[in-house]
Amino acid sequence: MKIKVIVPILASDAGLKSLAETYRKLVRPGTKVEVIGLEKGPETIEYYYDAEFAKIPLLEEVQKAEKEGFDAVLISCTSDPGLYACREIVDIPVVGLGQAELFVCTMLGSHICTITPGNPAMTKDLVKSYGLEHFIVSIRSVPLSVSELEDKEKAKKAALELARRSIEEDGADVIMLDCGGFRGLMHDLQKELGVPVVGPEVGILVAEALVLGGLSQSKVAFPQPVQKRRIK
Amino acid sequence: MKIKVIVPILASDAGLKSLAETYRKLVRPGTKVEVIGLEKGPETIEYYYDAEFAKIPLLEEVQKAEKEGFDAVLISCTSDPGLYACREIVDIPVVGLGQAELFVCTMLGSHICTITPGNPAMTKDLVKSYGLEHFIVSIRSVPLSVSELEDKEKAKKAALELARRSIEEDGADVIMLDCGGFRGLMHDLQKELGVPVVGPEVGILVAEALVLGGLSQSKVAFPQPVQKRRIK
Amino acid sequence: MKIKVIVPILASDAGLKSLAETYRKLVRPGTKVEVIGLEKGPETIEYYYDAEFAKIPLLEEVQKAEKEGFDAVLISCTSDPGLYACREIVDIPVVGLGQAELFVCTMLGSHICTITPGNPAMTKDLVKSYGLEHFIVSIRSVPLSVSELEDKEKAKKAALELARRSIEEDGADVIMLDCGGFRGLMHDLQKELGVPVVGPEVGILVAEALVLGGLSQSKVAFPQPVQKRRIK
Amino acid sequence: MKIKVIVPILASDAGLKSLAETYRKLVRPGTKVEVIGLEKGPETIEYYYDAEFAKIPLLEEVQKAEKEGFDAVLISCTSDPGLYACREIVDIPVVGLGQAELFVCTMLGSHICTITPGNPAMTKDLVKSYGLEHFIVSIRSVPLSVSELEDKEKAKKAALELARRSIEEDGADVIMLDCGGFRGLMHDLQKELGVPVVGPEVGILVAEALVLGGLSQSKVAFPQPVQKRRIK
Amino acid sequence: MKIKVIVPILASDAGLKSLAETYRKLVRPGTKVEVIGLEKGPETIEYYYDAEFAKIPLLEEVQKAEKEGFDAVLISCTSDPGLYACREIVDIPVVGLGQAELFVCTMLGSHICTITPGNPAMTKDLVKSYGLEHFIVSIRSVPLSVSELEDKEKAKKAALELARRSIEEDGADVIMLDCGGFRGLMHDLQKELGVPVVGPEVGILVAEALVLGGLSQSKVAFPQPVQKRRIK
Amino acid sequence: MKIKVIVPILASDAGLKSLAETYRKLVRPGTKVEVIGLEKGPETIEYYYDAEFAKIPLLEEVQKAEKEGFDAVLISCTSDPGLYACREIVDIPVVGLGQAELFVCTMLGSHICTITPGNPAMTKDLVKSYGLEHFIVSIRSVPLSVSELEDKEKAKKAALELARRSIEEDGADVIMLDCGGFRGLMHDLQKELGVPVVGPEVGILVAEALVLGGLSQSKVAFPQPVQKRRIK
Repeated sequence: MKIKVIVPILASDAGLKSLAETYRKLVRPGTKVEVIGLEKGPETIEYYYDAEFAKIPLLEEVQKAEKEGFDAVLISCTSDPGLYACREIVDIPVVGLGQAELFVCTMLGSHICTITPGNPAMTKDLVKSYGLEHFIVSIRSVPLSVSELEDKEKAKKAALELARRSIEEDGADVIMLDCGGFRGLMHDLQKELGVPVVGPEVGILVAEALVLGGLSQSKVAFPQPVQKRRIK
Repeated sequence: MKIKVIVPILASDAGLKSLAETYRKLVRPGTKVEVIGLEKGPETIEYYYDAEFAKIPLLEEVQKAEKEGFDAVLISCTSDPGLYACREIVDIPVVGLGQAELFVCTMLGSHICTITPGNPAMTKDLVKSYGLEHFIVSIRSVPLSVSELEDKEKAKKAALELARRSIEEDGADVIMLDCGGFRGLMHDLQKELGVPVVGPEVGILVAEALVLGGLSQSKVAFPQPVQKRRIK
Repeated sequence: MKIKVIVPILASDAGLKSLAETYRKLVRPGTKVEVIGLEKGPETIEYYYDAEFAKIPLLEEVQKAEKEGFDAVLISCTSDPGLYACREIVDIPVVGLGQAELFVCTMLGSHICTITPGNPAMTKDLVKSYGLEHFIVSIRSVPLSVSELEDKEKAKKAALELARRSIEEDGADVIMLDCGGFRGLMHDLQKELGVPVVGPEVGILVAEALVLGGLSQSKVAFPQPVQKRRIK
Repeated sequence: MKIKVIVPILASDAGLKSLAETYRKLVRPGTKVEVIGLEKGPETIEYYYDAEFAKIPLLEEVQKAEKEGFDAVLISCTSDPGLYACREIVDIPVVGLGQAELFVCTMLGSHICTITPGNPAMTKDLVKSYGLEHFIVSIRSVPLSVSELEDKEKAKKAALELARRSIEEDGADVIMLDCGGFRGLMHDLQKELGVPVVGPEVGILVAEALVLGGLSQSKVAFPQPVQKRRIK
Repeated sequence: MKIKVIVPILASDAGLKSLAETYRKLVRPGTKVEVIGLEKGPETIEYYYDAEFAKIPLLEEVQKAEKEGFDAVLISCTSDPGLYACREIVDIPVVGLGQAELFVCTMLGSHICTITPGNPAMTKDLVKSYGLEHFIVSIRSVPLSVSELEDKEKAKKAALELARRSIEEDGADVIMLDCGGFRGLMHDLQKELGVPVVGPEVGILVAEALVLGGLSQSKVAFPQPVQKRRIK
Repeated sequence: MKIKVIVPILASDAGLKSLAETYRKLVRPGTKVEVIGLEKGPETIEYYYDAEFAKIPLLEEVQKAEKEGFDAVLISCTSDPGLYACREIVDIPVVGLGQAELFVCTMLGSHICTITPGNPAMTKDLVKSYGLEHFIVSIRSVPLSVSELEDKEKAKKAALELARRSIEEDGADVIMLDCGGFRGLMHDLQKELGVPVVGPEVGILVAEALVLGGLSQSKVAFPQPVQKRRIK
């Protein structure tokens, strides 16, 4: 099995490499994971505006991935940019990190706190679009930009503090790390907090599980756009 | 007051002209309405995929409109492509036709039927993202493409039939014409059906009303993206 | 176009005059706005009990307005007393200030705080009856009676303080002034708060927009009561 | 214990007498049930408009009932006219027949069909205002006016047919008789249908149970209106 | 009428006797109330795990109750263990204390605070399974075990403090005592708090009312299990 | 990794063997899957009543599985009997087949039809308890008992017919096979229907993914019952 992970930003080589390592540790022996960034696109996605610049390059990469014989695509960004459009144009499953994390959270508890470096209204909109708002007890903003999350100690410390406050003040029983930049932290945080912490790692697991199950998005829900359409 | 209407597709000159006439008839004497299409973008928006190709040119036009001194922008497409991103980058109000029509419908009745030439799942997602799914009794697909709606007789006949069936079978009490291509039909349909029919016309009225009220989107909900962000 | 505004209480002449000025500034040149209070009815509406005394005189005024050739009626009270009954008996659109303000708020942000001099449970019930409770982050009681709102400095100061606390504590991104008595304050408050503030002013704009759009309430949702009905 | 039942219309003596008998059969030996109609008010309540004419006379009767030493009031009409206002002005519990029936239904099954001689949109609004719309599988209109329900054979036959269709077509598992005029039919219908049928009879049982439990509406939710308020 | 109350734990004789007295005071003269505990089962129900051990003995007692000619069964535990299974196997109404209390609360106000000695997540799940989560403003944990509630002074004091905080901080307008162990406290608490307090007492009243109304659970919703089924 | 699959009924050896084969084909090379039935319990689970008899033996097996060093437990029955109690008593993740299938469905489309041999009201309750009712367009009863599903041709034919009708009549875009007895059919059905079909196979994939992710249920949501508790 081959899964293509697309980080829908101008990711650094170091970041991509570290993400690839994180994901490869989790998958089964035969599963190949290729992680790429975009060559054109936004530096990070912290606003809706940023996300718009990721979408066309992302669509191209998704289409390419299918042609190259990949079995699934993971869009490795919790704001799920362009997810539904990507699902329309290919038959292989396209997994959005945001949706994957959210759904895993709902299987572990019922009071989710999300921790995000972006605009919390974006998280709220996403959660609403998936019909899961009643699972969320709080959306907490980490006072770090997406790029600052690369300083793993800083990211961990900040997430830890917000998670603790949410457990204490909001009754959170599951923590969702709401940014791909939080990779590599879930197990440490989990140990310190005593509640499940769901990070980007689950994205690759969901993608792999769908392929193993022979499942993909419904083409009734996401029909193939008519081919002859001219896009200038 | 000056309102810029952006049809986020490669619209024909005839279509734009006819839309401009439709809108100009409705606004107050002093209000100037300028209607443009995109120079680059999709032919029509019937899939999520199409919509992605509208967004960057649309963002540019929205930003340009603000610089040119327009008081509001209306995105004249009921799928509201890029609406939230557009709201982030300008201070003037940006109105989405889909949201405007939906909200007007909810003030007139409580059993809305939407009639769409696109993918009904897109309408469902939109309605859900605005938290209004409990107002919708049916989403009915008109067996015409967006461009076929330009044949007004055909469009009217098809909408009439679906609306009648929805009133009869689903108990619909308000009809929403869920495509900008339905312009110019609402009053005729209304007369024949005996229930309110909400068409794209209301978009310009909502935009004008927001300007008159001195209102615009919340910059807390739609914060300005950090300027220095580099987008390749 | 002629719009009748009915303030469903025993309003003072000064109050009516000031309201008429507020509304007239907003409408288009050709639009005539007539503002009346009730000759019989409650002094203010702060309880359900009060509202009941407004309804029959209000129904009479609404019917009279249609006979006099008005094109729309605005019930200028955010508790929307008798709104559905009024909609049944006339063909011209009847707008409730509460519904109009709420819907405008939902187009500007997604975390609404309402500020009310009345019983907050009434606001909650109203919001629920419109199916919009998921947009409300808080309902805050201003420690002033409806009549004390006539002291505009006092009203402004009190609203400002509550709005600030709601932005800070509840994450509010839009403020709704939940009483007709808050007229004339929205722009000042907006400037100081930096988020949209929706006041009674939007009621007249919604009413005017409906008339321009040739729209009115659905007679399927609000059917004409059988004429022969005897009411002693 | 003394319970005052108020039928908020110009009820006939025969109707009141028959209702009193129906209710008296159900209550405990010591419970006195007094059933009255209004001296001024609507003939029946089939529209919002009708309901408005019941409210002030109803408020007076409720207040009078408390002064006369009644322990509870039942408003014997499933549209619950003026319920919240009545709850504000007295300390004794005020039960609305619509709310009582609805809540009993939800304890017996989860797919309720309501059968109503009135405007089905009114039932929908009521159900929504109580937050119970997800329990309702259909609202079916009986082709009889409220007064025609006095012909018990006709009423029974019509209800039976609608209920059967709802069980068959909508999967209804509980039937709610959504009008006080359906008194006396629930047991017969239940026997024929094989599913629970909830009629106006449950109103008196809920009222009695609240008195026995020493319970009444919350004065935080329904605060006493300020006494000095002048109502012309 | 005879009602069997089953306390689905290894209840003490003193506890059962005191509960029987509490319930008998409320019912009508002719109503016989028999209160039993389980001979096998959990000491208390504070976890899902505990509840599982109550279910089979409870099912047996419910079946026995029907055979003995009881007219209704009340499961006197607010976590409603085995409620739906019990409803399947008998024709007489089976009332769950949790559901009964919740529904009574919703008729008295709209901001319910529940006070529980158990796991608050269990209350949340229960409320969700009945579709009533929008009525709950807080679920507060009393720092006492179920058995410690037998010290009535301690229980009262603890409930009082939590209720006061909920009224103050959460805007609660009704208090639900979310454990059968809170019997006998509702009226005292109500007097001190000034808002309705709903305790286990309402369970017997709901059961009695259903019998008086000739109502029982829908056999469409809760069909009789096929008899021949072998359970080893 | 070792996963224990517990079929919470008196399963036949042939059924268990065939299920084990189905599951083993899906997991990664190193993953051991052990499938057991109960030695005491119900023959099948088609009613709530049946389910109660599975719970205590199931709890014992779950506890035993943890002691034996299994890394996860899958309860292989879509009614998720005793799921929350099981989650309380162990630290290893406990997956319910019903929840796992439902959540996978929601990632593939938005109009789910479930096909069940049991009581459809049980499916409705389950879906509601997970807060996912808005994803379900229909719950269709297959006219076969759980044991008849072992005739795979019959099961396939029946499921196919219902699924086709749901796609046609309800607009279903994903089919959920709502019984463990449907194992082995999802891929065939999917091929014939052209929409995703989610069967019991996904249960093992979700369980494996949670172990790989180092995740388990929240002990805040599902706290360990106090050990000293005596259960007779």
